[in-house]
Amino acid sequence: MSAPKKVVLAYSGGLDTSIILKWLQTEYGCEVVTFTADLGQGEELDPARKKAELLGIKPENIYIEDVREEFVRDFVFPMFRANALYEGLYLLGTSIARPLISKRLVEIAAETGADAVAHGATGKGNDQVRFELAAYALNPEIKVIAPWREWDLTSRTKLLQFAEENQIPIAKDKRGEAPFSVDANLLHTSSEGKVLENPADEAPDYVYQRTVNPEDAPDTPEYLEIGFEKGDAVSINGEAMSPATILTKLNEYGRKHGVGRLDLVENRFVGMKSRGVYETPGGTILLEAHRGIEQITLDSGAGHLKDSIMPRYAELIYNGFWYSPEREMLQALIDESQKFVTGTVRVKLYKGSVRTVARWSDYSLYSEAHVTFEEDAGAYDQKDAAGFIRLNALRLKLLATRNRRVKG
Amino acid sequence: MSAPKKVVLAYSGGLDTSIILKWLQTEYGCEVVTFTADLGQGEELDPARKKAELLGIKPENIYIEDVREEFVRDFVFPMFRANALYEGLYLLGTSIARPLISKRLVEIAAETGADAVAHGATGKGNDQVRFELAAYALNPEIKVIAPWREWDLTSRTKLLQFAEENQIPIAKDKRGEAPFSVDANLLHTSSEGKVLENPADEAPDYVYQRTVNPEDAPDTPEYLEIGFEKGDAVSINGEAMSPATILTKLNEYGRKHGVGRLDLVENRFVGMKSRGVYETPGGTILLEAHRGIEQITLDSGAGHLKDSIMPRYAELIYNGFWYSPEREMLQALIDESQKFVTGTVRVKLYKGSVRTVARWSDYSLYSEAHVTFEEDAGAYDQKDAAGFIRLNALRLKLLATRNRRVKG
Amino acid sequence: MSAPKKVVLAYSGGLDTSIILKWLQTEYGCEVVTFTADLGQGEELDPARKKAELLGIKPENIYIEDVREEFVRDFVFPMFRANALYEGLYLLGTSIARPLISKRLVEIAAETGADAVAHGATGKGNDQVRFELAAYALNPEIKVIAPWREWDLTSRTKLLQFAEENQIPIAKDKRGEAPFSVDANLLHTSSEGKVLENPADEAPDYVYQRTVNPEDAPDTPEYLEIGFEKGDAVSINGEAMSPATILTKLNEYGRKHGVGRLDLVENRFVGMKSRGVYETPGGTILLEAHRGIEQITLDSGAGHLKDSIMPRYAELIYNGFWYSPEREMLQALIDESQKFVTGTVRVKLYKGSVRTVARWSDYSLYSEAHVTFEEDAGAYDQKDAAGFIRLNALRLKLLATRNRRVKG
Amino acid sequence: MSAPKKVVLAYSGGLDTSIILKWLQTEYGCEVVTFTADLGQGEELDPARKKAELLGIKPENIYIEDVREEFVRDFVFPMFRANALYEGLYLLGTSIARPLISKRLVEIAAETGADAVAHGATGKGNDQVRFELAAYALNPEIKVIAPWREWDLTSRTKLLQFAEENQIPIAKDKRGEAPFSVDANLLHTSSEGKVLENPADEAPDYVYQRTVNPEDAPDTPEYLEIGFEKGDAVSINGEAMSPATILTKLNEYGRKHGVGRLDLVENRFVGMKSRGVYETPGGTILLEAHRGIEQITLDSGAGHLKDSIMPRYAELIYNGFWYSPEREMLQALIDESQKFVTGTVRVKLYKGSVRTVARWSDYSLYSEAHVTFEEDAGAYDQKDAAGFIRLNALRLKLLATRNRRVKG
Repeated sequence: MSAPKKVVLAYSGGLDTSIILKWLQTEYGCEVVTFTADLGQGEELDPARKKAELLGIKPENIYIEDVREEFVRDFVFPMFRANALYEGLYLLGTSIARPLISKRLVEIAAETGADAVAHGATGKGNDQVRFELAAYALNPEIKVIAPWREWDLTSRTKLLQFAEENQIPIAKDKRGEAPFSVDANLLHTSSEGKVLENPADEAPDYVYQRTVNPEDAPDTPEYLEIGFEKGDAVSINGEAMSPATILTKLNEYGRKHGVGRLDLVENRFVGMKSRGVYETPGGTILLEAHRGIEQITLDSGAGHLKDSIMPRYAELIYNGFWYSPEREMLQALIDESQKFVTGTVRVKLYKGSVRTVARWSDYSLYSEAHVTFEEDAGAYDQKDAAGFIRLNALRLKLLATRNRRVKG
Repeated sequence: MSAPKKVVLAYSGGLDTSIILKWLQTEYGCEVVTFTADLGQGEELDPARKKAELLGIKPENIYIEDVREEFVRDFVFPMFRANALYEGLYLLGTSIARPLISKRLVEIAAETGADAVAHGATGKGNDQVRFELAAYALNPEIKVIAPWREWDLTSRTKLLQFAEENQIPIAKDKRGEAPFSVDANLLHTSSEGKVLENPADEAPDYVYQRTVNPEDAPDTPEYLEIGFEKGDAVSINGEAMSPATILTKLNEYGRKHGVGRLDLVENRFVGMKSRGVYETPGGTILLEAHRGIEQITLDSGAGHLKDSIMPRYAELIYNGFWYSPEREMLQALIDESQKFVTGTVRVKLYKGSVRTVARWSDYSLYSEAHVTFEEDAGAYDQKDAAGFIRLNALRLKLLATRNRRVKG
Repeated sequence: MSAPKKVVLAYSGGLDTSIILKWLQTEYGCEVVTFTADLGQGEELDPARKKAELLGIKPENIYIEDVREEFVRDFVFPMFRANALYEGLYLLGTSIARPLISKRLVEIAAETGADAVAHGATGKGNDQVRFELAAYALNPEIKVIAPWREWDLTSRTKLLQFAEENQIPIAKDKRGEAPFSVDANLLHTSSEGKVLENPADEAPDYVYQRTVNPEDAPDTPEYLEIGFEKGDAVSINGEAMSPATILTKLNEYGRKHGVGRLDLVENRFVGMKSRGVYETPGGTILLEAHRGIEQITLDSGAGHLKDSIMPRYAELIYNGFWYSPEREMLQALIDESQKFVTGTVRVKLYKGSVRTVARWSDYSLYSEAHVTFEEDAGAYDQKDAAGFIRLNALRLKLLATRNRRVKG
Repeated sequence: MSAPKKVVLAYSGGLDTSIILKWLQTEYGCEVVTFTADLGQGEELDPARKKAELLGIKPENIYIEDVREEFVRDFVFPMFRANALYEGLYLLGTSIARPLISKRLVEIAAETGADAVAHGATGKGNDQVRFELAAYALNPEIKVIAPWREWDLTSRTKLLQFAEENQIPIAKDKRGEAPFSVDANLLHTSSEGKVLENPADEAPDYVYQRTVNPEDAPDTPEYLEIGFEKGDAVSINGEAMSPATILTKLNEYGRKHGVGRLDLVENRFVGMKSRGVYETPGGTILLEAHRGIEQITLDSGAGHLKDSIMPRYAELIYNGFWYSPEREMLQALIDESQKFVTGTVRVKLYKGSVRTVARWSDYSLYSEAHVTFEEDAGAYDQKDAAGFIRLNALRLKLLATRNRRVKG
């Protein structure tokens, strides 16, 4: 790979990406464009601009954007249509944000004439894969720089020394090492590393930042009514809201009631297991409610097919293949199923849990006339079941007859 | 089908199966053998014997058996190795009990020279299918009688009248109609019908019988340590127990903390949707813990394959295909994966929820040396990730190049 | 089911459906509308009109239609996009025609105010299921009459007697029984029953009607170039043609070279095995060529996903679920993959076989620069493979290390 | 990776692996052990011994083994139980041989105290992945040396120069470059590269080495009867044979009749497409016959489950994951299905094609009594089909009713 001339860096404004910024300038002598996105991580973006300017980035090379609506509308919601869970439990909060960041990096590279993009993910994790697969899929000519895999700043001491030598301001609380590493966006906060590295030790309370401890949550349950249209949430308690607003509100409800905590050991794409603590307050409510509305609006053929491909879909997102033909094919399948997933679900929040307690829809497939214990009004002839069972049993009878014959 | 001469009836001792018993005697003039199983439903079996005698069943034709250990060891545990959930949520508590009952019915038929078996399931539900597919799979010559699909006792009034005409004792509380219908065994209690028929109405509190309301559960969380060997639970808090004992104990813990409630609209095999309220206190704990131990003992290849076939496995059990080659093939796959699923999981119970908080095992695949944020000791070379990503990206680059070319 | 007043009958003009026509008139006293479709079965349709008139059908109640283009464009081609094979071998020639017939029956019922449809399939086969599932899916109120399941004309003798009593003309060659039963349309001819019932006996030569015996085929191979656009065949040897014309032409080529014979024992949806002899000359060529063009235009992610869902898609069509949400969801997935399946394939026909020998496309993903044995021009860095393999191996190494440890 | 001290090399005796042998000695100064396996590639092994000795390998370090029986019994046959085809067409002839070679390399390394293994596969193909994944899975400590990824002998000229400088004899016909590259074993011969690199050009006739041109095959068809036990072939025309003998014989029959040629563009695991010409004469017959015997001995539940997981199984073998938990889990599933796959199949060979024409078995599930067109003898009640269809249609009716309502 020839040396890059101009690089778009995914820049948070924090110490690590500031060091990367400087390192790119010094190591490659290249011009740096910074991209700082508001994905709902809950941090001010203004300091990132100031810091970038301080580090010598030209104003026209500083991109700061609020992408929360795009994030929820085009990434989070499509994923939730699939009820995606990685390894049965993980709501993919980090995974789903990476492709959007890469997309903007590549687009800004095109706008600014940059030939490379750079990110601050390490060489051990999934995020490097997600950033880079997305970037290559969107621009096969792009160069990707992953400083953590290249440089020799392999210890905290070396990093701090580099920062000092390069006049990078170091916040007081960054001098010591954080007891764990955090990633956050509108969908979730993940924590991993250090104090969490032994999966036999319970995660300490201070790791949780996004939700109250269920034990400290209100003693009174709270009900929400979530409205859906074509598989996407569109309202809370009857009030229509934009995608990002809905997720923000659900996060507030979830935080308050301690909903969405997960302590997981998962399999990374790069081959190792890691332990993470995830908080997905709004997403956990959303998943439960989406399942609730599908229960009455999706028939079994559609629902079971969705269930059967879900693990693969989730794995693709986890592994970084958002921009792949197979993810798009699965999305087409999923979206096709959501045309009538419209209606309302009532969920109950209480001390760490969320449960569907009621659901209704103009599009409901539920038929009391068919299911009732009352005498039939002709909707269903119980005698049909005899033939249904006998033909379903036919092959099993032929098997049993054969097996008797050959064993006899 | 020619008339049966001798029938083995799945007999609970309750009013409905007593009416069936009498109806079989009068309608077909056939000898009846009763089979009453203790599956952990929490009812005395002695009254069933007395009632059968009262209805004229010969002592040698009355079979009463405690099958709880067999139920958990040979049916519940194999199913939990798969983390089976029907439609994402249902733990299959009723489905998994039916094949065992059918198996004993068919075996008792062979012992007693009976040519038929009978059950009390209606013509609208899944249980008729489960009973009958299992019976036919185990004995292709057996006749199956399903009175609810045959007789004209199609209303409560007619049933009570038949009972009175035939001197069948009617408990006082059975004169009126129950507000909902119940099935129970050691794994779960299900409730459906009547007051539950409108899925837009929250289930009333009195429906729940097996668990305390989470709001009434203890204010203090409780921890359990569950030991596993080859995928099956073998101990609680270090104390070894038999399968049925473990499930019984977990049920007690779950009940106390309000764990395992589910309000679900599901798709029946016979084509309609129905709404059920399920309480699976011990099973919900067991599923969470089993997932917890798999997290560190199963690699991603095994785990993801299991996840991908789970929906099909669950559907087979739900639909009544326990005794089918495809269920047995999937079981062989699942059991093959569980050889090293051995270790201990700590879970935390609190007001309706159960969460894995720690897990450890001599068979762990988790490697701190690989995952650590500390400087590498050589276990993992971050530079490998560059090649890994580039080859994973290669086809995406070729796609992007092609797409540019043809769109350009 | 209340008696039907007006019935649309799938009418071939042959003896059996003529008997059905009369039986419907006499048994139900209902008005009959006949629908006769040209699906490419190779029979004149005029006699069907005359015969219907002779049997008292009013001219406005006689529907005769050429649906070949619709058949190939909307049914056959979408199915071939999936490379669908039932049980690994069967090209689904009968299965794919039934939904179209049902669709027209239901549409004609709506046009003519009929409340029922009728078909001539027996109670043992798959076709009854296909006809009826499609009809119910398109009109949930429609009545379906399946005379073969209802009447007592259960032997050849009774049928002929009924025909004579009702002045239904009987062709001379229909007096005796045919040695096997045939279904044909533009995609295939199937033969089953009677002389084919023992799967241990080779099918006699006279069963094959649609293809020459490979041993009698030309001694010289013939090449074809088939052009594709978005997954569908659009030209032969450079000449653009309509869907039905292409299939007709491919049938001629296939017939001449003895291509597309299959002798199969398959599993019917109703639970039994049956043996069929299928001739699918053009379809066999089309499948081979479609695979050939996908080889260069589809990437592995898309191709492998398609392969993995194909058996389910084929099973749905075989079982009669063309008009089901899950078939439509899978179709959405498949169609999404075909956007760039455009190009040309050269196949070689010779004495019963068809083989792809060359393929090219402006949309090709094949890159000689990457695959060449020549020295690299930089397209691919072989050293990347080392990291790729090491990370793919990482979990296997961790497994091996664990297994060594625990086995001591 | 520290330098290896003793290396076990997969050694063919040819020029390329002789160069590797020398290069290992000179580059790493390490002791070399050679392993030459007779996998049925049709070459004498004695010259390999002589050449190894000539290159200075000590006699006790020269391993030459006939592994044909193990190859067919433990690798080829288990794979054929699955009817495995990669990308719909490829019989995996190369893929399935690699794990066996790696297994012996690792075992010999243990016997001889070697710390490394080496192979002659390039950095562009699949074989490097297969060799190395297998090696790491069997010994996580082993070092793997892949000279083609390391050295600078990147052109034919440099290789020949190295050979000359190191006194490696060069056969006359190796001075010029081969027009394509070949791999062979008892299952197949594959050819790729050079003259085959353009997939738009038909492969020249001289590429095919293992089968006669169908046009030159006998004008008279030939029949074979292949006996199976539990899914594996055990006899030809009534004569019992060992696994390798059976495959050898089938290869002879296949060669004679021009069976098993395939011209394919496939997707390599490393991300690029490549074009290969494969000849699998005996394997093609075996696959057809295995499908034939499964048709009558496997029920639809088992067969459809097998079909649905086959693409994944084939992909695992292609990608080199033979020694992975997921391949072993799938194998357990497949093997479970084969318990009664016992019986005989008659196939017909003619000018490039093989077709099942008859099959019979004591374990047959085929029931003429059920399928017959004759009047029923009570095995099957056609009226059962009505209930079967109505319940299968129920959800479709509910869907249609809902869709009318909401669209109306």
